[in-house]
Amino acid sequence: MITSSQNPKIKLVRALLGRAKERRDANAFVIEGVRLLEEAASGDWRIEIALYDGSLSERGKDLVDRLRLKGVEIEEVTQTLMKSLSETETPQGILAIVEINQLPIPSSPNFILIPDQIRDPGNLGTLLRSAAAAGVQTVLLPPDTTDAFAPKVVRSGMGAHFRLPIHSVTWEEIQEQTKDLQIFLADMDGKSCWETDLRKPLALIVGGESEGASEEARKLVMQKISIPMSGDVESLNAGVAGSILMFEVVRQRSVSSKH
Amino acid sequence: MITSSQNPKIKLVRALLGRAKERRDANAFVIEGVRLLEEAASGDWRIEIALYDGSLSERGKDLVDRLRLKGVEIEEVTQTLMKSLSETETPQGILAIVEINQLPIPSSPNFILIPDQIRDPGNLGTLLRSAAAAGVQTVLLPPDTTDAFAPKVVRSGMGAHFRLPIHSVTWEEIQEQTKDLQIFLADMDGKSCWETDLRKPLALIVGGESEGASEEARKLVMQKISIPMSGDVESLNAGVAGSILMFEVVRQRSVSSKH
Repeated sequence: MITSSQNPKIKLVRALLGRAKERRDANAFVIEGVRLLEEAASGDWRIEIALYDGSLSERGKDLVDRLRLKGVEIEEVTQTLMKSLSETETPQGILAIVEINQLPIPSSPNFILIPDQIRDPGNLGTLLRSAAAAGVQTVLLPPDTTDAFAPKVVRSGMGAHFRLPIHSVTWEEIQEQTKDLQIFLADMDGKSCWETDLRKPLALIVGGESEGASEEARKLVMQKISIPMSGDVESLNAGVAGSILMFEVVRQRSVSSKH
Repeated sequence: MITSSQNPKIKLVRALLGRAKERRDANAFVIEGVRLLEEAASGDWRIEIALYDGSLSERGKDLVDRLRLKGVEIEEVTQTLMKSLSETETPQGILAIVEINQLPIPSSPNFILIPDQIRDPGNLGTLLRSAAAAGVQTVLLPPDTTDAFAPKVVRSGMGAHFRLPIHSVTWEEIQEQTKDLQIFLADMDGKSCWETDLRKPLALIVGGESEGASEEARKLVMQKISIPMSGDVESLNAGVAGSILMFEVVRQRSVSSKH
């Protein structure tokens, strides 16, 4: 049982939780909780090490047994140590280091999401979760968006990381990837999304709440679209606004496919 | 200048931040940041006391001057003390105790939101913010939903609290208030929201992420509606799902009003 916070494995977990650079260098990230570990284990994701403590549920213990059979390195740690690593108030008693397995970008995508200058990890996680639910095929992350593999993003993504191709790219690469697509920007001054045809292959750029979209994004954009507000409030949470627009794309495509 | 954490005003702020019962007993809540204080000051909301510290911006200082002219009690506090009260990582140096001014429920509402068993304050705040933007006329909070005036709800509500009638009610009162409305429940097993007519006066019940809607809610419901997912993920964040459905109501009503 690991008891020291200076144990190299514990230090590695802490480094991966804390810094994007560490995650990039190690090509790995940390996931927490039984459900996320089950998803990683059932998919094509290599678990480098799993740590658990005595508070783990029966379902969690079954998972640990299965991981052990698959040859995954497993270590028990003290509850104090687990609590010091956990990002949640009520830790589930299990976390793991998982190798980042970058899923390939499909050859002719018809639905790409570009979260631009999104700094809030919860908002980015929400966008990823909604993107997975809306059938988005690729997420391209420009340089100024927060790291998708940060712990809070992973937590609010609820498994989206295991299903969606998520690529950190330059604006040149975004231009190349989206050259055959219509490019829309979520913008309060845009045309109503309900009056805009979103059925053709497209990329949707969603800007951050404070700064909006970057100059580079605005250069690429063909059309700005908005969500008409009927109340006197002028803004929506960025994660919500992006989600409403993504599902408007799904709605239009599903309606048109029935006619 | 207040320097002691034992000062009665500081203790009152802490109590109001911490416990729903204190907020109910005092009929007051705490708001933080320049923008929210500006909104409170410009509307019909009584600010009981405002606290600021030396880090306050110029815009914030102007606000303090205006509040002082209006006769609001103002106290400077140390930055350490402000930081200990603040819910944010980068405090703006100002907060206030505001009297809860329950806005009246309109006589024949056609759009009511009922967030049921929503425990996560961020999700409830998101729903309130979206409700204000979607022109929802009243929010009815059943007994098992988290307190709408808790600090995290207020923060993510972004001013919705000053615009929306938000009433904590029993299920009997909900039944009475909704007796002339169609009642819909957001539910994964429901009929597609895109194929459901949402133009008539309605109440929308959105359940919590872990437990869904309560038994009492299910007894009232006339129809379950869902957001069709095209990805292989089976759920959306509760705040997002409720927001997508609210804006689907807005969309259907705006399209129909044009024909």
